[in-house]
Amino acid sequence: MFRHEHRVRFAEVDAAGVMFFSRALEYCHEALEALLDAAPGGAAGLMRERDLGTPTVHVRADYRAPVRYGDTAVVETGVLAVGDASIRLRHRISRLSDGEVSATVEHVIVTARMSRFESVPVPPDLRALFARHLVDRAGPRAGEPAGHCP
Amino acid sequence: MFRHEHRVRFAEVDAAGVMFFSRALEYCHEALEALLDAAPGGAAGLMRERDLGTPTVHVRADYRAPVRYGDTAVVETGVLAVGDASIRLRHRISRLSDGEVSATVEHVIVTARMSRFESVPVPPDLRALFARHLVDRAGPRAGEPAGHCP
Amino acid sequence: MFRHEHRVRFAEVDAAGVMFFSRALEYCHEALEALLDAAPGGAAGLMRERDLGTPTVHVRADYRAPVRYGDTAVVETGVLAVGDASIRLRHRISRLSDGEVSATVEHVIVTARMSRFESVPVPPDLRALFARHLVDRAGPRAGEPAGHCP
Amino acid sequence: MFRHEHRVRFAEVDAAGVMFFSRALEYCHEALEALLDAAPGGAAGLMRERDLGTPTVHVRADYRAPVRYGDTAVVETGVLAVGDASIRLRHRISRLSDGEVSATVEHVIVTARMSRFESVPVPPDLRALFARHLVDRAGPRAGEPAGHCP
Repeated sequence: MFRHEHRVRFAEVDAAGVMFFSRALEYCHEALEALLDAAPGGAAGLMRERDLGTPTVHVRADYRAPVRYGDTAVVETGVLAVGDASIRLRHRISRLSDGEVSATVEHVIVTARMSRFESVPVPPDLRALFARHLVDRAGPRAGEPAGHCP
Repeated sequence: MFRHEHRVRFAEVDAAGVMFFSRALEYCHEALEALLDAAPGGAAGLMRERDLGTPTVHVRADYRAPVRYGDTAVVETGVLAVGDASIRLRHRISRLSDGEVSATVEHVIVTARMSRFESVPVPPDLRALFARHLVDRAGPRAGEPAGHCP
Repeated sequence: MFRHEHRVRFAEVDAAGVMFFSRALEYCHEALEALLDAAPGGAAGLMRERDLGTPTVHVRADYRAPVRYGDTAVVETGVLAVGDASIRLRHRISRLSDGEVSATVEHVIVTARMSRFESVPVPPDLRALFARHLVDRAGPRAGEPAGHCP
Repeated sequence: MFRHEHRVRFAEVDAAGVMFFSRALEYCHEALEALLDAAPGGAAGLMRERDLGTPTVHVRADYRAPVRYGDTAVVETGVLAVGDASIRLRHRISRLSDGEVSATVEHVIVTARMSRFESVPVPPDLRALFARHLVDRAGPRAGEPAGHCP
């Protein structure tokens, strides 16, 4: 499990004064980047030096409670599975103020040669890095709704 | 089916030069707002005059092809179902340049009293408005991947 | 003078429910891109095919009235001067609903080889394109505050 | 002088791979919010509990060097003057990697009753808070261009 915090700023909320649903996914990606910063050269170094990126091929999010301006969104990112060329992540966003779960997200990325948008096998060092954050599929799911296909 | 176009601008792409995955969902919401602009007072009027909003409770997106800076994302939004207090939408994003499908999105919104973030029944005028854009569930799904739960 | 409209969407306002000050500058840049779309290949084609971009070196904005969610920001862009390697623009943002001026912006861009972030002379075709939108410096300035150095 | 850091993320750069000019101003506002977080209830508390905000009435920025994806923008915010109902700030954005100055920004905010967008005198506690970060006008200006009116 990897933990990342993002304070919700004045310009980041929507007309209802809360974190917009797509903004939540930006915070999840930020958490992924922060996790990848443990690689040599950081997340940006992967792209710059190795032409390696992690585009999103699938995302699924369930929203349960708003996060307001001034609150901090806590993203906990776990790795559900590392495949040949893809990684399945689960993020849980909660409010720092009261611990309430705001959203749960399933997120599938692929490893890709970015200059060609071409899928490549997950390199061993990234495989090891993601493996450090493996979580049990059943575990943190408690916070999620029914969990069936919408 | 409702059609909305968004030209992808210089500042809207990511470090790989393409539409970021969460940005795609912003474009879908823009399409929803444009659809709701047919209500009296427009989408903004619903909130301002009737305290009525349509927060997202669920979204699921599959990404298939990048949209680059300068290309135009075409969002086609269909209504799959109108429930008591929720609406299930499907968006398909394609590139104007070559028609290639970039992403397919399922999107569930609820009608809510925004001052309290409290679900309310879909009002008759909005029910009628959404009904105008009803699509057959099976139809445009062709472009999607397997369609099973990830 | 070049005219561009941008409808202010649900996710684009700040916690006060109005266009954020830096967002106004995004709309100005959108207007610039729309103006450049008259070049062969459009604004994006300049970068993709000719390695040519127009980075901002200076901006100055005065804000006078808010633009709310649901209103449309009208950007009127005029060219004040075309130099050897720079262009001085003036944007005026007003509300479509009542014509009230929201912000006035002075904006200096340079023409640059983007792969090296290196300034280059304004190419003749762009010089001609900008010349089409030349405005008198004194004219539309009326809407601005005192106009002296802050 | 107040210091704030912002790591430039994958989705925050423009099609040229660098911090967009208006994005720089978002980072400056983030620094302002972080500075105001020292007030009781934080920056968000001012608005929520006291209907007090700090809208921008003027901004002027000079851009000198790009900040790339993966680099960290360091914002140093100083207060130049506290007036009856306005505060004049200066921000300097530099790259954490090599200390190079990327942009210098002058930024004037007013204190306002947000429900009415009405200017109010700077309250004593905020006056004291801003006074803690007063800088000499001449000092850090060294990094700036000529400093005359554009």
